[in-house]
Parts: sequence; structure tokens; C-alpha cells
Amino acid sequence: MAKKHEEVMELAKRRGFIWPSFEIYGGVAGFYDFGPLGSLLKNKIIQKWREFYVVREGFFEIDSPSIVPEEVLRASGHVDHFVDAMVECQKCGSAFRVVDLVLEQTGKGIEGMPKEEMDRFVKEHKARCPDCGGELGKIFDFNAMFRTAIGPGSQRVGYLRPETAQGIFIDFKRLQRYARGKLPFGVVQIGKGYRNEISPRQGIIRLREFTMAEAEVFFDPEDPRHPRFSEMAREQLRLWRAGDQIKGKEQLTEVTAEQAVERKVVCNELMAYYLALTNRFLLDLGIPSEVIRFREQTPEQRAHYSSETWDAEVSTERFGWVEVAGLAYRTDYDLSRHAQFSKEDMTIFSADKKRKVLCHVMEPSYGIDRPLYCLLEHSYVSEKRKYLRLKKELAPIEVGVFPLLNRDGMPEKAREVYESLRLKGFMAEYDDAGSIGRRYARADEIGVPYCVTTDHETLKQNDVTIRHRDTMKQIRVGIEKLPDVIKKLLNDEIEFDKAGKPIETTSK
Amino acid sequence: MAKKHEEVMELAKRRGFIWPSFEIYGGVAGFYDFGPLGSLLKNKIIQKWREFYVVREGFFEIDSPSIVPEEVLRASGHVDHFVDAMVECQKCGSAFRVVDLVLEQTGKGIEGMPKEEMDRFVKEHKARCPDCGGELGKIFDFNAMFRTAIGPGSQRVGYLRPETAQGIFIDFKRLQRYARGKLPFGVVQIGKGYRNEISPRQGIIRLREFTMAEAEVFFDPEDPRHPRFSEMAREQLRLWRAGDQIKGKEQLTEVTAEQAVERKVVCNELMAYYLALTNRFLLDLGIPSEVIRFREQTPEQRAHYSSETWDAEVSTERFGWVEVAGLAYRTDYDLSRHAQFSKEDMTIFSADKKRKVLCHVMEPSYGIDRPLYCLLEHSYVSEKRKYLRLKKELAPIEVGVFPLLNRDGMPEKAREVYESLRLKGFMAEYDDAGSIGRRYARADEIGVPYCVTTDHETLKQNDVTIRHRDTMKQIRVGIEKLPDVIKKLLNDEIEFDKAGKPIETTSK
Repeated sequence: MAKKHEEVMELAKRRGFIWPSFEIYGGVAGFYDFGPLGSLLKNKIIQKWREFYVVREGFFEIDSPSIVPEEVLRASGHVDHFVDAMVECQKCGSAFRVVDLVLEQTGKGIEGMPKEEMDRFVKEHKARCPDCGGELGKIFDFNAMFRTAIGPGSQRVGYLRPETAQGIFIDFKRLQRYARGKLPFGVVQIGKGYRNEISPRQGIIRLREFTMAEAEVFFDPEDPRHPRFSEMAREQLRLWRAGDQIKGKEQLTEVTAEQAVERKVVCNELMAYYLALTNRFLLDLGIPSEVIRFREQTPEQRAHYSSETWDAEVSTERFGWVEVAGLAYRTDYDLSRHAQFSKEDMTIFSADKKRKVLCHVMEPSYGIDRPLYCLLEHSYVSEKRKYLRLKKELAPIEVGVFPLLNRDGMPEKAREVYESLRLKGFMAEYDDAGSIGRRYARADEIGVPYCVTTDHETLKQNDVTIRHRDTMKQIRVGIEKLPDVIKKLLNDEIEFDKAGKPIETTSK
Repeated sequence: MAKKHEEVMELAKRRGFIWPSFEIYGGVAGFYDFGPLGSLLKNKIIQKWREFYVVREGFFEIDSPSIVPEEVLRASGHVDHFVDAMVECQKCGSAFRVVDLVLEQTGKGIEGMPKEEMDRFVKEHKARCPDCGGELGKIFDFNAMFRTAIGPGSQRVGYLRPETAQGIFIDFKRLQRYARGKLPFGVVQIGKGYRNEISPRQGIIRLREFTMAEAEVFFDPEDPRHPRFSEMAREQLRLWRAGDQIKGKEQLTEVTAEQAVERKVVCNELMAYYLALTNRFLLDLGIPSEVIRFREQTPEQRAHYSSETWDAEVSTERFGWVEVAGLAYRTDYDLSRHAQFSKEDMTIFSADKKRKVLCHVMEPSYGIDRPLYCLLEHSYVSEKRKYLRLKKELAPIEVGVFPLLNRDGMPEKAREVYESLRLKGFMAEYDDAGSIGRRYARADEIGVPYCVTTDHETLKQNDVTIRHRDTMKQIRVGIEKLPDVIKKLLNDEIEFDKAGKPIETTSK
């Protein structure tokens, strides 16, 4: 069942997408490196996210520190509420997150259950230490923020941010001036978030340090509309409502964004808009619609700051449904708390309404690492041959360049072609190891959409072959036209079959 | 003298380039936020750096965690050597970095001086507490890494990385396989670095959390050549040699990269190549050549891992010469230490030499925040009018869109133009506040290269004016051609004067 996961992770490690961190020192759970291909893919996912939120939505991007002094996180509620129920083995001393341990041993999800009930539940189900089988102690809260001290001594406590959002909220006074009082306006931040997991056991899915892309949309609570809602109104959504989950019903509510608002399935138009936008983003990455759903968190599961939360989930073979984004209606919780704790005025003088407004916040918050893993799993094809069916604009390497044979001037010519493509800004890779078939196979498994080969004819006619990853078809194109053709192919401006002279034989 | 700094920082704060972090809670020294314009500018600087190192040099980019377990940093020498000499006031308890305090009170640089000598120096010069005038205590070492604990309890010590480089070195086994044994090869990482400064007093220049872009070039010590050295051979360098500094000579050695190697001013060809590339990068950002120099660190100033270090420095009005990049010849120090501490084989089987090689490392390491500040200072023009003479490709906002007047359909048309430019991916800004003159002035001071205005003629002829920031000249261009013209202007593909119909009057 989880064979695909093993294959994808083997590929990811071998080819340089994802590596366990600190491997030569035995590794540390909850940390992964992105290798050369993983970094390229990650940067392309971030790029696409920016196209959605910075270019299209017109949101402002900021960049604030990952170290945050305690006052901020006391005001935000994280010092009190960003906790995990934890339990230690009384025999071997190993520590576990109760929710994970219970899920592993009973298959039951108890997220959000009060501590006393958890204690009873663990006893009733006779949960034991998964490492040594020993008896478990009493459940207690563990604050999941990484703690540090700013400056010498330990007088000034700081934490690594659990979310990038707080950096935006505390800049609200500056930001509303930047927005010149126009509502709604949105602010984004892309960067590291941290969660000091107790004992993470789910590889790339449960990280202690992760990259997140968060948007905070500030709006007048009396006017929770999106100016371009009509563009998203007909987007189909697959929603799993909290009420249905509580009743044990697996069935999804399938509605358009517009219907979700009309039928009050979601709290307001902004929520529906960003559910639809998130859906479109995931589809645009190349994740199939049938493995995407939105799950409403039950009141017990919701974070302290949210009055309604929908998790975008993607189904995976190994980890089941994985949360890749969360959409939270944070109300005026954060701005009110910071106003109270900092004694600063956190209202905005609305340019349209000519009055002071205490903004409410809609938050679409995305992970970057998890969608990346989901994308690898869902792009991985292993039928007759293995290849990654990544969308062209996401492929880490855009074009491979090979000599057909390592003689007769073919490698020199291929090198020339490779260098000229690099200098034009293409992410090209040169490969002359093994047979041509092995090189195509190596390019296929990392999703290179086009491979260029120099052969005997190249030296006579100054042209090359281009091979298409998905169809394995080939065409011949003159070298002087090559960069332009590759560019147009990558941008879907021309069809492959019409981009050059077709070749009948796919191998020589 | 430092008036320019004050003006630039006022502008940076008011318009959203740089904000003090945690401002509503009184701020914390050593932390700055990048606001919407600052983030755009920072991303563009990073983009340019990637063009140099990832696209042009063909280096591999990786992304590893900012939290690093202690073993790694013990092997790297940072647990022992990443320390600052510190002194506390015996009266008020304030803590200071000795080197900063001495520089402030005596004008003397004592970086690298042994602790005992520092103690004597401070006594002889009668240095006092800058806060209360109290007497200072004994000097001691303070480890400047932020410390934290990974997982519950404090059994596993971790630190926030002082450099991104270690994430690369410990991945060497994976990376050399990715490079298929071909030397030299380079690996880069862009991300946060941390230094828990004792009492930072230099604003944006001395940060506790900063963005860095580091490259590690692995090479055979018997062959320290760069395959494309000829491209850099004639680049002019202004070098301040360590020997001259020790003798108190201010004079610079002005040589080409080639001469620097021949005359043994630098240790090898790779060092000369990356000095030249760094020089070109800084020039390409728009920093004038006369304010760039390379200063060789004296043996006492060098980090524990380096046998030769050159700092790229930029002269500023407020902070004097500021280090913006460091080029260190790290020899085999890091790979040897990690081999020793991890017991792993850190050699590479060279594909060319057919033998095992313990690589040496050349490291070009860049800050991103400091060049950004230097760029603002050196782009700031305040003659008859104030404007930022940023290069077009670095300008955070590429095009401003204004209605000449807020009536007669001009705002609606301007909005349309603005939306269509955004959807085509241009970083456009709409502004209809105040007079047209005020709008141009606001665009000028953030460096917007082109401003588009809709006016009475627009409604009749469907064309707009484009105004050029530097010359204030205007041309008229048809709306349907506008995106194409703006794109070509931004890419320097057409001259402004020839891009449309010139307009005689610059204001109406």
C-alpha cells in the first residue's frame, strides 16, 4: 500500500530532492534538507504562490524576524495555548505526543480532547510506550515553541515564531498607513515557522522547522466581501463539514463557492473566496481534484484565535489525508489582543466609510513542504517507465542536454548548446554518463520536460533533436532557433508536434 | 555628515522599506522588518545573486534547517570559537561588546586582540560604561550563538546557525554524488543566519538575525583554477592588503584579477575570480566603484576556519566602510573536522584525476541586508528633487499608474490600466491621492522608473503618458501597446525617446 511512498522517498533522496538533515551525525527527527532539485521545486512553488497572492491579489509582502520576544507571543496567546498534550514512559523515559500515540495504537483521533478525558482515554485503551512497552505517566502540557534568550544572560526570553502571522499583526499600524486606509487589504509573509514537536514520527509531514506562506486579509467586519468574488463564484468545492464529522458521516458537501455562502456552509464571502483560490492553487500545482478536500475543524480542534477553520487536505498513500493549508477566520482576536497588551491603537480610519474600524482577519495559511511532498507523490508515474509528470513550469530542470555518443565532436557541441541555454537563463543540465537510454531515464525520473541531443546530423546540419518527456516523441530543430523553441514550448506558446521536423524513430 | 543616513532611514521607515521590529512593544535592538517595498527590493537582490551564482556559475542551491544540533557546531569549531569578548558595567550591569565599546570611545579597532591585551587596553584608555559612566568589569568570552533545546526537556542542545555554510558541508557526501565527482563544483544556500549580539548599536548594520547568501566552492587543492577565469582576468580590483594595514598604510593596491594572482596578492586563481565576481555583482546592483574596496583581514581578525579572507567593503556616510561580503579560503578545515567528528569519509573520487581528493573550499559569502542599505544610501538623490536612482531591474515598483484628475472617467481608466498591468505580472501601483505633482514626487522617492497617467486625451485617443523618473521627460503611448512598451523599457530593449510620441510640456 505505501510502496509508492517508499519509491518516491528513495527517488527524492537519491536524486537530490529531499535529504534527512544532519545525516552524518545520525539525523534528528523532524528536520529535512531540500537538495538541489528540491530547492528548485520549492522555489517554483513559492513563485507560483506569489503569483496568486502578491501579483494577482495585490497583497503586500513583508519579511520579519523568526525570533520573537516573549511579550508578542504572550499577547498572541501562544505562550498559553500553543501546547501539545505530552506523556512520558515511566520505564524508559521516552516522550510522546498523546494524540499521535493514540492514533497509532487505537486508530482514533482525539485532537482537541480535554486533558482529563485524554488521561481516561489512554487508560481505558491501555496505551503503552511504543518503544519499550512500559507504562505511561500522567498527561501534561508541553509548550511547542522553541525557546531562546536574546542578548547575554537569560533576561530577555524569545521564541522561534510558531507562525509568520504575528509579524504582520504587530506591524498593523505601519501597514494600514501603507494601504492608505483602503479595506480590504492583504499582507503576506513567506518564511520559516517552527514547532518543537515532542517526538515526530511522520518524516517530511511533521517537521519541526518548515516553510510557510501566510496571508492575512484585513477587512471591515460589516463588509466581508471580496471585490472580485464573481471570478471565483462558480469554483467547485468539496467540503467536509464539522457537523458531519461529529455525526460520523464521511460524506462531502459538494457546492460552488457561491452556494457555500448562500447556504451558510461557510461564515462569509471572503472565506468562500479563499477556499476557492486555495483549490485553484492546488489544482494549478498539478494536484488532482479528486484527492483534494476541505475539512472544517470541529470547535475542539480549532486554534485559540479562530472562530471557523477549514483545512485544505490532500490524500496520500502513506499518510492518509494531509493538511496542506488552513483557512482561519481569526476575527479581531489578534489586533484586539495586541492593542490591549501594547496599549497602541490598532484601528484603521477607513477611507471609504470615514470612520474608525477594528479590522477582522481572514487567514489563508499554506505550508510549502507538504504540498511539495504531495506533488512528488501524485506526479510519480511508474508504469512501463518511471517518470515525474510535473507541470512544465514546476520542473526543477527545464531542459536536459546530451551528446548521443561520447565521440566525434558530439560532446563538445552538446556542451556549447548547454552553456548557451544556461546563459539565456534556462535551468539546463548536461549529462554524458552511460547510454542515451539511461540519460533519458534519468531525466524522466526527475521530470525534465524536454531533452536535447546532439548526434551525427548535428555536425552536418547544425540541428538537434528535442524529446518530449510525456510522449517520448522527438522533433529536429536548428540550433540557432533552439532557445526560442524551448522557451515557447515551456510557456505553451507552441505545440510540440508543430515546433520542428518530426522524427519517426524514437531511438537510433 | 550623517544627514543622508537620517534622511534615507526616515524615507525607508515612512514608505515601507525598513521598519524597526516589534515597534509597538518598544522594539528590540538588532532586529529589523522589511516592509512591502523592502521585501520587493530584497527579493530582487536575491534574484540577481541567483543569476550570478545559480544560473551563471551553475552552482547547486540547497535549503537546510536554521536549527542545528550541537554536534555539528562543535565539529565546525563554532561552539569554541564563535565568541565575542564582552564586558559588563559593575554599576548598572549593562553588557557591551568590547571591540564596539573601544571603537566608540577611542576610535581604535582592536578586533582579534587577545583577551589579556584587551583588558590592559581598556584600563589604559580608561574606558567607562557608555550608559552610566560606571567602571567596567573583567573581559570574558560570550558565545554568540542563540541556544535552544530540541524536543522536550533540554537533553538535546541546538543552536540557530551562525552561517548557512555548515548545512552544505555536512551534506557533502550527498552533494558530491549529485556533482558526479566533477571538480570544482559549487553549492549555495540563501537564508537566515543568526548572531546573538551583546548590545547592537548600529541599526540595520549590526543585526542579530540576517539574510545571507553563501557559496561553497569545492576544489582539488592541486588545481585551484576556475574554468572561465579569462572572463574575469581583466576586472579591476581595489585591494587593501593586510601587510599595509599592519604598517598603517591607507593605500590601496589597484590590480586586475590576473595581476592579483601573478603577483601573489591573493592565494590562488579561485580567490581572484570570486573577488572579481563580487566586484561585478556590487557594481551590477548599482553601487559606484569608487565606494567599493576589498580589505584583507589580518591574521588576528580571521575566523578560525580561514587561511585568507578578503572583505568586500562599501563606504557609507554613517557607518564608514561596511563589510557586505567576505571571501574566505576555508582550506579543508570543515570537511576534515566533520570527517573526524562524524567518522564518515568526506573525500570525493575525482572523475578526472581518478583518485580520492579531500576538497578545499573557497567561500564567497554575502550579506543581503547590508548591501540593501548601502544601495538605498547610494541611490538616494536629494538635489532639486528627491528620488531613488535605483536600477530599473531592482526598483520595487516598476510602474505607477495615476489619473491626471479624479474626475471625467480618468480614475476608472487608470484603474483599468493598472489592473491589466498587474495581471500581466508587472509590479504596478495605483495612486490617486493629492495632486499629480505630489504623486510623481511620491513615485520618485521610492524609485519608480516609469509613471503612466490617464488624462483628457486618454478618453478620446485611448492613449496615456509615460514619464521617465530620471529625466522627467514624457511620451504618449497607445493603451494597447502599453504593456509591451513598459516591458521593453524595463529590459532596455528600446530607448525612452523612441518609445512613443514625445510631449513638450512636462506638466499640464
